[in-house]
Amino acid sequence: MKRIVLIRHGESVWNRENRFTGWTDVDLTAEGVAEAYKAGDLLLENGFTFQMAFTSYLKRAIKTLDCVLDRMNLDWLPVEKSWRLNEKHYGALQGLNKGQTAEKYGPEQVLLWRRSYDVAPDPLGHQDPRNPRFDVRYKDVPSGELPLTESLKDTIDRLMPYWKERIFASLGRFDNIVVTAHGNSLRGIVKTLKGIGDQDIVGVNIPTAVPYVFEFDDRLKLRSDYYLGDPEEIQKKVHSTASVK
Amino acid sequence: MKRIVLIRHGESVWNRENRFTGWTDVDLTAEGVAEAYKAGDLLLENGFTFQMAFTSYLKRAIKTLDCVLDRMNLDWLPVEKSWRLNEKHYGALQGLNKGQTAEKYGPEQVLLWRRSYDVAPDPLGHQDPRNPRFDVRYKDVPSGELPLTESLKDTIDRLMPYWKERIFASLGRFDNIVVTAHGNSLRGIVKTLKGIGDQDIVGVNIPTAVPYVFEFDDRLKLRSDYYLGDPEEIQKKVHSTASVK
Repeated sequence: MKRIVLIRHGESVWNRENRFTGWTDVDLTAEGVAEAYKAGDLLLENGFTFQMAFTSYLKRAIKTLDCVLDRMNLDWLPVEKSWRLNEKHYGALQGLNKGQTAEKYGPEQVLLWRRSYDVAPDPLGHQDPRNPRFDVRYKDVPSGELPLTESLKDTIDRLMPYWKERIFASLGRFDNIVVTAHGNSLRGIVKTLKGIGDQDIVGVNIPTAVPYVFEFDDRLKLRSDYYLGDPEEIQKKVHSTASVK
Repeated sequence: MKRIVLIRHGESVWNRENRFTGWTDVDLTAEGVAEAYKAGDLLLENGFTFQMAFTSYLKRAIKTLDCVLDRMNLDWLPVEKSWRLNEKHYGALQGLNKGQTAEKYGPEQVLLWRRSYDVAPDPLGHQDPRNPRFDVRYKDVPSGELPLTESLKDTIDRLMPYWKERIFASLGRFDNIVVTAHGNSLRGIVKTLKGIGDQDIVGVNIPTAVPYVFEFDDRLKLRSDYYLGDPEEIQKKVHSTASVK
C-alpha cells in the first residue's frame, strides 16, 4: 500500500485578521504552530512515516511541514518546494479585509470571487508592488506563467503538471509522501484524486492542519481516503473554515 | 563576486550537558535557537542573500538553517541535505559525558581522540543500537560507507566528494550559498578552502552560529574570508568553544 497525506497549513496571521492572503507570505500564529505540531504527533502516534515531502513557496505551509516533520523525527527528510503548490492568487483583493471587501463590492460579488470555479478577482497591475515579478523567489518562473489573479480553475491548471510529474510520479519511488499546502491548491489535488466535479469542489472545505490520508494499491488506484483524528473536532474545524473563508 | 557562508549550529542540548554528540540527533537549546536567529538578523542587516542552501541530516544544523532563512525571508529557498555534512562520528564515545570519559580513560587519551587528525575513538559494535545501519535516514548510503567511528581525517574524506561535486560546484549556478553544519565537517571545508595543514586544522575553532563568509572572484579563486559580527564577542565564543570541546 502507498500513501499520500495532505495537510493544509495551520492558522496564519491573516486568517486571524480575516484578510485575503493568496500569495502574500504571512507567518503562522502561535495557534497555527500548535496545530501543526499536533498533526505531527497524531501521525507519529498512528505509525505513519514518510520518505519524501512537498510544499509551496509560502512560509505558512513550509513551517507547518517543518513542525510536522520535527515531531516525527523526520527533520532530515528531503523536501521539494514549488510555487505551483501556492495558494490561489487573489489578485487585487490580496491584503484586503474580507468584511470590508463585502461592504464595498457587495456580499454576492465576494462570494462569487471566493466560491465560483472559474471567476477570478480583478488582477494586480503590472507595476503593483504585489506583482510576483518583483519577488526574487519567482525569478525562474517564465513570466507568462506568473499569475496576477486566479480563479480556482487557474490555480488547479498551474498545479496539475507539477502534481502529475513530481508529486504523484514520486509514488513510484516512495511509499509514503506528505504534501503541506493551502486550501485551494489542496482542493485541486482532492478534485483530481477523487474525480470531483467543477461545481462540487468549491463546496469541499479542508480543515487546517488535519492529516488527510489517501491510500493507494500497488497499481496506484485509490483505495480509501480519510482524515486522521477525532471526527467531532474535525467537523468543527470544517465548519469554522467554511464560515470564515 | 561569489560567496559561500558557513554557519556552525547553535548550542545543542548535549553541548550544554557536555556529552559527546557526533551523529546523535539532539535538538538545539532555546539559547541555540536564539543564536541562530541572531545570525539570520546579522546576515539580513548586512545585505546578504542566498540562492541555495546545504545542511546535514542532523536537526541541530537543519533547525539552525531554518532560523537563519526565516529571518532573511528565505524560507522558500531550495535546501539540500546530506549525511556527508554530518558531524564527525564519535564511535563508542557518543552519549558519554566528556568529564567522565576523561576520568575513565585519562585526559591525554580523550585529548588525542578529540584533537588528533587521524586517531578515531573505539568503533560502535555491529549490533550496537547506535549503529547508523539501524537508522532509516541512512538506508540509501552504501553500508561500506557508513562509519562506526571517525577521525577528523575520516570525516573530511567522506565530506570531500560532496563538497566538490555538489556544494562548490553549485557556485557555477549560484552566486551566494549558505552551509549550516558542524564543528568538524566545517573544519574540513575551511581546511580545503584555505589550504590549512593536517596538524593545524585541529587547532581551528569555529564559533557557533557566527556567519563565516568566504568571497571568491569569478574564476572561483578565494579573495577573502571573515566572520560577520562583533569581533570581541566572536573571540569570546571561539575561546569558550575551544575550552568546552
